[in-house]
Amino acid sequence: MGKRQLFLMSSSAVHGFGYLEHAETDLSSFLKHNSVQKVLFVPYALTDHDGYTERVGSVLRKWGFACNGIHTFADPVAAVRAAEAIYIGGGNTFLLLRTLYERGLVGEIRERVLQHGVPYVGSSAGTNVATRSIQTTNDMPIVQPPSFEALALVPFNINPHYIDPEPNGTHKGETRPERINQFHELNDAPVLGLPEGTVLFVDGDRATMMGPQPTVPGTVYDARLFRKGQESMLYKIGSDLSFLLQQ
Amino acid sequence: MGKRQLFLMSSSAVHGFGYLEHAETDLSSFLKHNSVQKVLFVPYALTDHDGYTERVGSVLRKWGFACNGIHTFADPVAAVRAAEAIYIGGGNTFLLLRTLYERGLVGEIRERVLQHGVPYVGSSAGTNVATRSIQTTNDMPIVQPPSFEALALVPFNINPHYIDPEPNGTHKGETRPERINQFHELNDAPVLGLPEGTVLFVDGDRATMMGPQPTVPGTVYDARLFRKGQESMLYKIGSDLSFLLQQ
Repeated sequence: MGKRQLFLMSSSAVHGFGYLEHAETDLSSFLKHNSVQKVLFVPYALTDHDGYTERVGSVLRKWGFACNGIHTFADPVAAVRAAEAIYIGGGNTFLLLRTLYERGLVGEIRERVLQHGVPYVGSSAGTNVATRSIQTTNDMPIVQPPSFEALALVPFNINPHYIDPEPNGTHKGETRPERINQFHELNDAPVLGLPEGTVLFVDGDRATMMGPQPTVPGTVYDARLFRKGQESMLYKIGSDLSFLLQQ
Repeated sequence: MGKRQLFLMSSSAVHGFGYLEHAETDLSSFLKHNSVQKVLFVPYALTDHDGYTERVGSVLRKWGFACNGIHTFADPVAAVRAAEAIYIGGGNTFLLLRTLYERGLVGEIRERVLQHGVPYVGSSAGTNVATRSIQTTNDMPIVQPPSFEALALVPFNINPHYIDPEPNGTHKGETRPERINQFHELNDAPVLGLPEGTVLFVDGDRATMMGPQPTVPGTVYDARLFRKGQESMLYKIGSDLSFLLQQ
């Protein structure tokens, strides 16, 4: 996996920042470092493909990158094969994965990223599908994909939009840690809870926690790692998480 | 559907009440009115079947009802066929529905309830599976059921643990209404958002919103109904929702 280049964002929207603004410095560097001039955007997690591509593309253009929506190509597989970089946006994870399977893109994207080193950018649902499965998404199962298995660009699961329980909450629905513990009653893979604002950056066999300078005083961007049968652990921005890649 | 008797709870735990306590009066009446002395409890939504059955059974016994876990029967289909009442508890909706399919219970429970008038009690995941599909669950897809289609005891969807967005929330994950609106971009069925504490009671072709006297001053138990392409509407306790059964 020496070529693998992944920029996995928890979310596009972050409290205290404009849309994608929290990632401007790091994502621009990631793309420039990989000599990317044009990004292939995959808007399948939402239904308004044109609107979604314009929303992301207008930000990328401001930063100096061109952006095309995969839905504008007659042959999406060929579009992936020709892409300088692939960026899968957030929305509904089930809709996204179903569409990737329908269009025959799961194997193709995996091969481009893992074998050819094409840089991959994901946000929220686009980060979920980058992992081994979508089993730790927060989304509603509004459509049924043929499988929950995903791109498997990394051998563990991520929970985007991760949030610790409110200390004095009155809502009795399962907290995020309770949901992830239920996952571990039936599955073995580690789950990295990425709070909004944070990014998992993967460079070959190295993985690093990244995140912005907070604009709201007191904001803490710690990721919480859940492993089956163990206490969860917090990891600060800058932490080396390469051990998660060795499964 | 003249025989249908459903008691569909949003949740077992409610702020300000002990476990199941919020439903004591209404659920006891429902079971007594249907001459139920013994309840068949289905604990498949959690992994600890004995512990879960004891947790619910100890409350039911206090109210004067016997309770057996379906997992203690060698033949669960026969257990359903002989049941005076079926009570499916909450937990993980995906695990629950997968297990119902694995044990061949989906058609059997549907027939007992719709054709033979066996009373059905559901809570949270047990309420999700009572509807046409599990597509509006809040749970994580920790295992994959063969289908998202469920018992279809009612022809619409329910979102248990329904909660309106926090007015000044800083979390950017989709709000509950946003998730339900995404469902309606791709599906037509109405979705009834049942806040914790509330119950949908179905007696044949009549459906009524029920709920407890609040123990915490100021608590409002309004259900929110989402219909495709329409503004959502609030329904107070006591509201007649029979129109939802006419699809």
